[in-house]
Order: sequence, then C-alpha cells, then structure tokens
Amino acid sequence: MALNIVIMAAGKGTRMKSATPKVLHKLAGRSLLAHVLKSCESLAADARIVITGHGAEQVEAAVAGVSFVRQMPQLGTGHAIQQVVPALVGEGTTLILNGDVPLIETSTAKALIDACAGHALVLLTVDLADPTGYGRIIRDPDDGGVLAIVEHKDATPQQRLIHEGYSGMMAAPTVALKRWVGQLTNNNAQGEYYLTDIVAMAVAEGLPVLGIKAHNEIEVLGVNDPVQLAQLERAFQLRQATALMHAGVRLADPGRFDLRGTLTHGQDVEIDVNCVFEDDVSLGDGVRVGANCVIRNAKIAAGARIHEFTHIDGEAAGASVGEGALIGPFARLRPGAQLGAEVHIGNFVEVKNSTLAKGAKANHLAYLGDATVGERVNYGAGAITANYDGANKHRTTIGDDVHVGSNCVLVAPLTIGKGATIGGGSTITKEVAPGDLAVARGKQVALAGWTRPTKKR
Amino acid sequence: MALNIVIMAAGKGTRMKSATPKVLHKLAGRSLLAHVLKSCESLAADARIVITGHGAEQVEAAVAGVSFVRQMPQLGTGHAIQQVVPALVGEGTTLILNGDVPLIETSTAKALIDACAGHALVLLTVDLADPTGYGRIIRDPDDGGVLAIVEHKDATPQQRLIHEGYSGMMAAPTVALKRWVGQLTNNNAQGEYYLTDIVAMAVAEGLPVLGIKAHNEIEVLGVNDPVQLAQLERAFQLRQATALMHAGVRLADPGRFDLRGTLTHGQDVEIDVNCVFEDDVSLGDGVRVGANCVIRNAKIAAGARIHEFTHIDGEAAGASVGEGALIGPFARLRPGAQLGAEVHIGNFVEVKNSTLAKGAKANHLAYLGDATVGERVNYGAGAITANYDGANKHRTTIGDDVHVGSNCVLVAPLTIGKGATIGGGSTITKEVAPGDLAVARGKQVALAGWTRPTKKR
Amino acid sequence: MALNIVIMAAGKGTRMKSATPKVLHKLAGRSLLAHVLKSCESLAADARIVITGHGAEQVEAAVAGVSFVRQMPQLGTGHAIQQVVPALVGEGTTLILNGDVPLIETSTAKALIDACAGHALVLLTVDLADPTGYGRIIRDPDDGGVLAIVEHKDATPQQRLIHEGYSGMMAAPTVALKRWVGQLTNNNAQGEYYLTDIVAMAVAEGLPVLGIKAHNEIEVLGVNDPVQLAQLERAFQLRQATALMHAGVRLADPGRFDLRGTLTHGQDVEIDVNCVFEDDVSLGDGVRVGANCVIRNAKIAAGARIHEFTHIDGEAAGASVGEGALIGPFARLRPGAQLGAEVHIGNFVEVKNSTLAKGAKANHLAYLGDATVGERVNYGAGAITANYDGANKHRTTIGDDVHVGSNCVLVAPLTIGKGATIGGGSTITKEVAPGDLAVARGKQVALAGWTRPTKKR
Repeated sequence: MALNIVIMAAGKGTRMKSATPKVLHKLAGRSLLAHVLKSCESLAADARIVITGHGAEQVEAAVAGVSFVRQMPQLGTGHAIQQVVPALVGEGTTLILNGDVPLIETSTAKALIDACAGHALVLLTVDLADPTGYGRIIRDPDDGGVLAIVEHKDATPQQRLIHEGYSGMMAAPTVALKRWVGQLTNNNAQGEYYLTDIVAMAVAEGLPVLGIKAHNEIEVLGVNDPVQLAQLERAFQLRQATALMHAGVRLADPGRFDLRGTLTHGQDVEIDVNCVFEDDVSLGDGVRVGANCVIRNAKIAAGARIHEFTHIDGEAAGASVGEGALIGPFARLRPGAQLGAEVHIGNFVEVKNSTLAKGAKANHLAYLGDATVGERVNYGAGAITANYDGANKHRTTIGDDVHVGSNCVLVAPLTIGKGATIGGGSTITKEVAPGDLAVARGKQVALAGWTRPTKKR
Repeated sequence: MALNIVIMAAGKGTRMKSATPKVLHKLAGRSLLAHVLKSCESLAADARIVITGHGAEQVEAAVAGVSFVRQMPQLGTGHAIQQVVPALVGEGTTLILNGDVPLIETSTAKALIDACAGHALVLLTVDLADPTGYGRIIRDPDDGGVLAIVEHKDATPQQRLIHEGYSGMMAAPTVALKRWVGQLTNNNAQGEYYLTDIVAMAVAEGLPVLGIKAHNEIEVLGVNDPVQLAQLERAFQLRQATALMHAGVRLADPGRFDLRGTLTHGQDVEIDVNCVFEDDVSLGDGVRVGANCVIRNAKIAAGARIHEFTHIDGEAAGASVGEGALIGPFARLRPGAQLGAEVHIGNFVEVKNSTLAKGAKANHLAYLGDATVGERVNYGAGAITANYDGANKHRTTIGDDVHVGSNCVLVAPLTIGKGATIGGGSTITKEVAPGDLAVARGKQVALAGWTRPTKKR
Repeated sequence: MALNIVIMAAGKGTRMKSATPKVLHKLAGRSLLAHVLKSCESLAADARIVITGHGAEQVEAAVAGVSFVRQMPQLGTGHAIQQVVPALVGEGTTLILNGDVPLIETSTAKALIDACAGHALVLLTVDLADPTGYGRIIRDPDDGGVLAIVEHKDATPQQRLIHEGYSGMMAAPTVALKRWVGQLTNNNAQGEYYLTDIVAMAVAEGLPVLGIKAHNEIEVLGVNDPVQLAQLERAFQLRQATALMHAGVRLADPGRFDLRGTLTHGQDVEIDVNCVFEDDVSLGDGVRVGANCVIRNAKIAAGARIHEFTHIDGEAAGASVGEGALIGPFARLRPGAQLGAEVHIGNFVEVKNSTLAKGAKANHLAYLGDATVGERVNYGAGAITANYDGANKHRTTIGDDVHVGSNCVLVAPLTIGKGATIGGGSTITKEVAPGDLAVARGKQVALAGWTRPTKKR
C-alpha cells in the first residue's frame, strides 16, 4: 500500500525571534526538520513531501531526499494539506507530521501507519499533565473510537477535565484525505482552514477514527520559542545519556552531558562531568574522558586517557588518538592530528595536521603543525614548528628518538635525522643529520653590576 | 502622598557562618540588600531607610543613596521599626521590606503601596506548598480582609491547614504605624517586640487590613544559610535565563547558565553550556559563545565566534571583540584588549592592553601586552612582547602586514615598520624599518656523533 | 556481645556491562564496597566478612582489613549466608549488608544492631514512593511486628498497596541465623536459596521480628546498572554539597559540584560552578575558587584565589598554594608545586616539583619544573626550565629578586644568583653571578627590501 509522508514546515516561528526559519533551528546539532525526517527514515515511503512557506528557500536548501510543496500564504493546517494533495501518491496512507515536533519516535509513526492501513483516520494523541490549550479527544464510551476533537476554548467544563489531547499528527487514508480537505471551509474567526475538521467528516462517513497515544509527552512537544527548544534539548540529551548508560557507558552526571551526533564506544568507557561530543566520535574500550572536554570528529583508541579541559576537533579531516595515549589537560588536537599508541600530549600543546608515532611526547607549551614525528621523540617545552612562511605551509619531519630542546623553532621545510638532538633555544633552519647535536644559539655573556631600570613616575 | 521605604538589615545571619553580614552576601554578583534596593529603585520614595545592626559599618559602607538607622541591640522587628520612627517622613505610606529577601518584585512592592494608599495596613502574603513555620493569615470569610496573623506554634490544627503565610513585608499608613509601634510590648517568651502585633491594633481600630499575595514563593524567600542562598541563586539564574530565551537568545542549557550583571544582546545569539557572564557584557547579532566560557565586562560585535574555554575579563578598562572575529579555544583577553574585525586569537594566547587592527592574527601560544598591532599582522606561535623591564611597562608598535616569526621576543619600547618580517626565534631590541627582514639568531652548528647523557642511578 | 558484619559482594552485575566486578565500581571516587565498609567502620565488629564470587580476586585485592568467604557458584542470598556460617563468631548479632548498596548510613546500621541485641530478627525496610518490584513488609496490626515479607509477584492487590518494602539488609541473632540458613531449601522456580525465608522461621519460633525504616530511599538503593550508579552519584554529591553549605561553604550551584574525597575548609570559602575536588583538598579561610576548576590533593592557604580553569593535581607528593596567592586562569600545578604567600601563577603556566618563595611571579606561558625560585622573582613570559636532558632531571635554582626575561631557556643544572637579570630570549647554560645581567642572544641584523615568499599554487 502506498505511503506518503507529509511534513508541515511552513511556519515562521515568530517567537523564536530569529532570522532562521523555525524548523531549521537545531536540537542536539541537527535541525528540527532533520530530526523528523530521521525518525521516519526507516519507513518505506513512496513520497516524502515537506510543505514549506516562511523561509522556503532556506528550508529547501537544508534537506535532501524529499520533495517540496510551497504553501503561500499560510492559511492553516487544512490549507497546507490542500496544497499537497496533487503530490500525494497511491491509494494507501498519508502520514502527517510537524516539522517543529522533532522527537516523534519511529515506532509511533509506524503505529499510526499500521492502524490507518489505508482506511482508518488515526490521530496521535497524548495524555497531558496539563492539557490547557490542547484540543481534547472525545471518545466513544463504548468502543473507544474518537468522536471529535474539541478545541480548548470550545470545551465544556466537563470536557476540559479530559487529559487526552491531540498532538497535531495523524495518519489518514489518502483518497479520503484528498476528498475531505477539498470540503474544508474557513468560516471561523481566524479565516483559516483547519485540518482537524476532517474528523467530523470521517465520523459522518462512518469511517473508523482511532486515537493512538504517544509514549510520552516529549514525543509530541513542539518548538515555538527558545524556552521550548531548550526543554526539548535537555529531554533529548537525557534520553541519549540514559541509552548510553544502559549500554555500559559510565557518566558522572547524565545532566551534564551533551552529544550532538554519534558516539560509538567500547566497554568500560567513563565520561566525567560537563563533556560535549559533536559529530562522530568513537571511544575505545576503557577510554576515560575527564571533566570539561569538548570532542568532535575523533577516534580515541582503547585505553587512552583524555584529561580534563581537552579540546579535540578533527573537523572534516578527523583526529585520532592511539591506544594508551595520554592527552591533556589543556591540550588541543586539531584536524589531521594522528597520534600513535602511548603518545603523550600535555598542557598547552596544540597539534594540527601532524602524525606522531608510538611513544612520542610533547608535554608542555608546544606547537606541532604539519609535522611527521617519529617514535619516542621528545619534543621539548615551548618548541614550535614554524610551518607557515607567511604564504605557504611546509612540512617538518622529525626522525625516531630525536630530542628537541626547549623553546626551539623548527623552520619548515625541515628534516631532523633519527636520534639527533636539538639544543634548547635553537632556531633550526637547515637539515640535521642523524645522531648530530644541532645548536643555534648566542654565546652567554655576563655584565657584572648591571643596574636595572627604575620605576618612572 | 509621601512614601517611606524601610529595609530591615540588622540581622547577623549566624547560620551563614561568615564574617560578612548576612545582607551583604551576594546573589548573582550583587548583595542581597542591593537586590532589594534595586527592586524598589523605580518607586518614588521620599525616604529610603536601611536599619542596620550587626556589621553596621560594613553594611553602611556598602550601599549608597539611602539613610541609615541603627538598631542596637536587636530586640525584634517591632523594635526595629521603633528605631526608625523619627526618620519617617510625611503622612502617607511606609513600605517595610527585608534586606535578606532579595527577589521581591517591583510590581509587588508597588501593589502594596497602592493598596495601602496611606490608610490601609497591607500585608504581603504567599501561598506556600508547605507553610510549616510561617504565620498563617486568618481572613474574614465575608470580605476577605485579614483578621489576624497566627504564629505556627500558636495555630490550631484547623488553622495549620491554611496555606497562606505572612511574608514579613508590609505597607502601613505612616501616622498609624508610628502610633502602633509605640504601643508594642515585649511580654512574650523571647522578650522581643513583634511588628506583627500591629495587625491586631489595626483590626481593633477598624482600619482595613488587606493581604496581597506574592506572585510566587521565590519573591518572599529569605536567606538564612548558604543552602537557601544557593536555592535563590539558582531560581534567579533560571528566571534570567528564561527571560533571555524569550528575548530570542538560544541557551543550550538554561540550568547551566550564570549571569551576574547585565547581558545585552542582538538577534540570533547562541550560548553553549556552562558559560558565566559577569558585570556588563554585550553580544552582537549572531554571536556564538562556545561551551565553558567566562566573559566579564566585554563587548562582542556581530558575527564574532567565541570558542570553548575562552576567558575574557575587561575589568574596568573593558575588552572588545570586532565583527566576525574568532576567539579561542583557550584564549584569554584581559583589560584593554581591543580587537578589530576579523581578528583571530587562538589557543593559549593572552592579550592585554593591546589594540589589534582588522584581520590581525595571533593563533598560537603568544602574549601581546601593551601593543598596537596593525592590519593583517601575523603574530607567530610563541611570540612574546617583553613589555615589562622589571620596573616600567613599555609599548610595542607593529605596523600593518608585519609577519612576526615563531618564538620571537619583541623587547619594548619597540617599533616594527609596515610589512617587515621578523625571523623566527629572534629577540628584537631595535627598531625595524618597514619592509626589512630582521633576524637575531645564533648560527646553526652541528656536532656529529654527539653522545646523549645517560640515565643515572 | 559479639558482632559480625557480613557484606554480600559476590554478584556479577551483568547490567553494568563492565569487566570490573559490580562492587568495585566507583561512586564519588570510592568503590561501592568501600562505601559500605566505611559506613560501618566505626562499629566495633568482631568479624568483618565480605562474601565474594564474581571477580573474587579483584574484589579481595581491593579492600583490606576484612576476611573473605567465597560463594561459588552463586545460588542466592541464603546460599551466600550458608557459606559464611563457619566464619561467624560469638553468640551475638550478625549484620548483613549489601556491597552494591553504598549509601547505607552508620546510624541505620547501628540501629539494626541495637534492635537485634542478639535475639531479635531486624529487617531494614524503606517507605517507597513506588514499591513495584520490592518485597512488601506485612506487619502485625497490633504490635507492628513483621509477620512476613511478600514478594511483589506473590502479593495480593491489597498487599501491593503497601509502600513499605524490604531493603535486603538485616541484623539477626547469630546463633539463630546459623540454624535458620541450615534449614533453607531451594524449592522455587529459580532453584535459589532465599535469605528472606528465615523471616517465616523466626515468626514460627516466636522470635521478635522487627522492621526498622531507613531515613530515606537513597540509603537502600542498589546499583545494578550505570543509570543507577549515576543516580546515586548525584544523590551523594548533593548530600555532600548540602553538608558543606551548612558548614558555611558557599557553592554557586550545588548541582554542579563534585567532591570525590575529603574537603576541609575554613570560613568564608566560595566555590563557583562546575568545580571538581578529588582526594584530599583543604581550602583556608576566604579562599575563592573560580568556575571550572579541578583540584586534587592540594592545600590552598587562606585568602588565595584560584581563578577559573585552574588544574591542580598534587598526586602523592601534594601541592600547596600560599596565603593570598593568585592562581590562574588556565594554570596548572603538578605534584610538588609549593607556592609561597602572594605568589602569582598566571595563564598557561605549568609548575611541577618546584618551590616558589613569597611574592614570586610567573604570569604567562611558562614552565617551571624542578626549580627553587626565590622571593619576588619575576619569571618572564615563555620562560622554560630545561630540566630534562633526555635521561635525567636536573634542578634550577633562582635567587631572590631575579628577573628572567621572556622566552628564556634555563638549562639545568643551573644557579642564578640573587638579583641577577636574564635578557629576553637567552638560553642560559652557565651559572649567573648575583647581580649580573646575563644575555645569550644573536646580534640583530636587518635585510632591507626582503621579498617574502609568495603563495604557491
């Protein structure tokens, strides 16, 4: 049976007070609309149609794999579906979701489709602690079928006691849906076409009208302002944190954990408070991440320890940390940092587009950019690869077992042979042969009885 | 009609376990007493009187624009008002607030004053989930007027079911208040004079006694120990966060946001988790602040990105970041840092009392102090302005398009002309002419077959 | 009367999904089992017996001062106690605790023992908001004595309304306990021996069976998966934070405070948001710790300020900060950092195994390792002690009032005499006499009209 998935995404979101259309606002690093699309990704749909309106160009540029129907102007939910009628395919089911209700679950969407089965109208409802403002679901006391949705403002005191509200989402028989929306009128105060009016039509036609309840309120909450966005963000983060914990990840504080992307992990991973993970991050067996780390696009191998205040951002190139490596605190790994096993990167050290072989160490206040560093190299405190001549970037190659002294400058392009030693404070501009000691240093002179400057008024 | 505002601030706050008088403890960076004063700042008062006692000198030194009356010793709330009688002006209204109840709202204070209008006694009451310990408000079942405040310990079981409690704040007709407090006695177990005894006097005189309810419990909560201080701090922070979100600011986690001062902002500002803002901060349109930033006294222009772990503290001098600038992660801007448009300040870089023109960059491990830096300057990794000779600070001037190499020391006072280049590892003590390449460097020598030190036992 | 304390710690904890036995998982830096042991540390026990099973070797290696009995295989709680019978001493009381229920309070354990007094069976019960899954306590309506524990699955609808559940902990008369567990059978679906079956035996024998309620649910919650571990972690942290606040410590956010060890403190200590304290930390009077600090094994003297993003880890050697010192932001103190009064350690500065005397300053981007630094020394930006020659560590001694210029390298072993000055950019390898100016620097040369490299395609 043919399935259409329609996502309403034409609203402006005035209360967001933003230049960005509402459905493009991000929750956990992904737009609201993308969340909805992801939740119905695994449903075999014959057509996926997004109804755009406000900021249509931006919205249409932001998502792929769907078709778009524009609703201009926006005259209500029924009007939105009227626009989409020509694009609906087949005689099966049409699932209608909201682009600003991001946390709808796949299983719920599937339940709506299954219950519809091309001939029943199925409303997604929700039991609400406080149903104020929601349309109430009036059910037949005998068979539990839905008789009507009564708007809050039209509800009797008795009806207001009902805690089951309408979520705004439904699945409808495609053929009937087309017929119904053609019959909608806008004889109401707002002059809008309401999709909910089709409930009465279905009842009048004697079609089954069912109400399926969402698992939880979070699933059907919409985003209308930054307060609601933040509420859903926290709910989503807590849901992710709980899933990770059930999978064995130990979080010191699930309330201070943010994942905006995908975190894959081995066994016995520990994550301390206040860490943020973005894009694709993998943590091997036994990895421990200290408090206050920010990690994006990185692979951390088994047994590595990421100490507090470490910032890793591999961006498109990625970054990788080898087995048993020790990183931080206050370390920064940038795109193309590829650290081998047992590498140590210490405080105030930055690594960019560089490969460090097994056991190499840069423990203090150093910069490694565009470098290839051999095994067991000791890269001293304050050492810098001068990889940029103001116009081009050049590479520095440091052989195995090299010892680079403190505050050295290695002017690239440069090769330092295996086992060489660079004296502290040297600026090295020429190749250093294996095993050599290279020094570039002024002679130490002393001026006895020197008088210091004195404080001027 | 004349208005007196009286703030009771004589208490010691023993449970704070602090050398600081209770009302001077800080909530969101401002003392409790200052919060109360701020809440009634816009009320046109003829006299603002703070009753001091414990730590009177400290309290009196801490606030301005008010007069002080000392209550020594402290013999109860009624005794406090007795001391203030001679200082009360006019025949209108006297508003009585508590210096340790910081979150009273201006609208509530105004409602008390308006309802008093110089002739009614108006009590601020509150509906409490758990009223244990509070004096209960006994109202006339007919007209709702207050008949009495019954202390918790004196209340009947029936009265204890009342959830409306007395907040400790009131507005009274000034003339009557003077008369009443003159009639108070201390015939009670504590030997104290209770201000609440005036309710019975007002009732006896047939004056209207009204109860006005606070909007929420937070408004009337007092601070008696650090636990309560922290509770109010979080409530206040959440209130601020919510207001900012309603104004369009997007907060990744309103529960991890601290503002101790004023935050002005443009549209589409995003603030990631765990940021702290202090004093006066402004964020232009589209500014994004990464996780874990601390920002004080700074202006951040439109489109700038403040990456994670950035510390900006402009102190009295202020700090400013230009449009589209990129700052951090792990950057520190200190007083007098004035960064132009598109400036980049990267990791482990400190800027103090320095001006950087458009497009200047200091991306790695560097210090810029007392410097004037031209447009498009590239200030290399590890470069340092030696601005302090041990006695005086001197200035470094770097012209447009200068390229300063890695690990250079620029010994101030120093001028580097436009377009000059400083070779990596150079210590520059003399002026560099525009366009010159300046180098100060030892010659690189090699010692073949050098034997490294070996591990001693 | 002899007291046995038995702790059941044989379970695997499958849902932890960890290679570590469940009772060795850590809460606030200490294993679950160690928490239980600590809670009964002050009880004068004649025998402390831990029943091990899964991961027995690991568990037995992890705790001291107790004896172990292995339960292999694990055939239920009754079977566990059967194994321990030969090890029980005397005719008094046996207290049975769970190694995965970490937050049992000493006073509760003591109450069980006292109530048992060698002749009553005493169950630790708890009033549960949601008792689903718990065995219900059936009490005699007359004397309140316990008649039975009814498992949730066996409970009648009426019994399911009971909110008092069994915690799994008890105190039993030792002699009777031995007799009872000898009579247990495993005629049940699981084929296990249930310790709770002894309740019926005690009732049948006419022994008093008492139920003592835990103070709160937290006390009796067990850890079965990382979600529960995190819940208890937060509950424990909040309990610690509240106790510290009642003792006068001011926490900006008790929900963002972690203490994994012991924090001793003076008066008027303030701790900003998101700080983590581990092992033994002491904070003197008036110490203020900024946001996002991590502090382990350190003593901070009165009046010191620890600015934001400071990382102090004294490890075994400890670290100490003197009175009125200013540390951070972005400072790192490592083992053996001993800072005198009024020392300043600024941003991107690392100190390891070094003593700094009163008033010494290292404010920017520097490394001090294995150094002895005199009073009032000014250690310049970018200065480095080259304390490691690739094989051995050497010491640097810097006299009082020395001024070390920017980006200097001090190659250890090295002594710099009092009042000496080291010119910026110098690499110093030889002793410097007191009062001398030492410089080791290349001569500054200029190349006019130098042509910069150009961008290659």
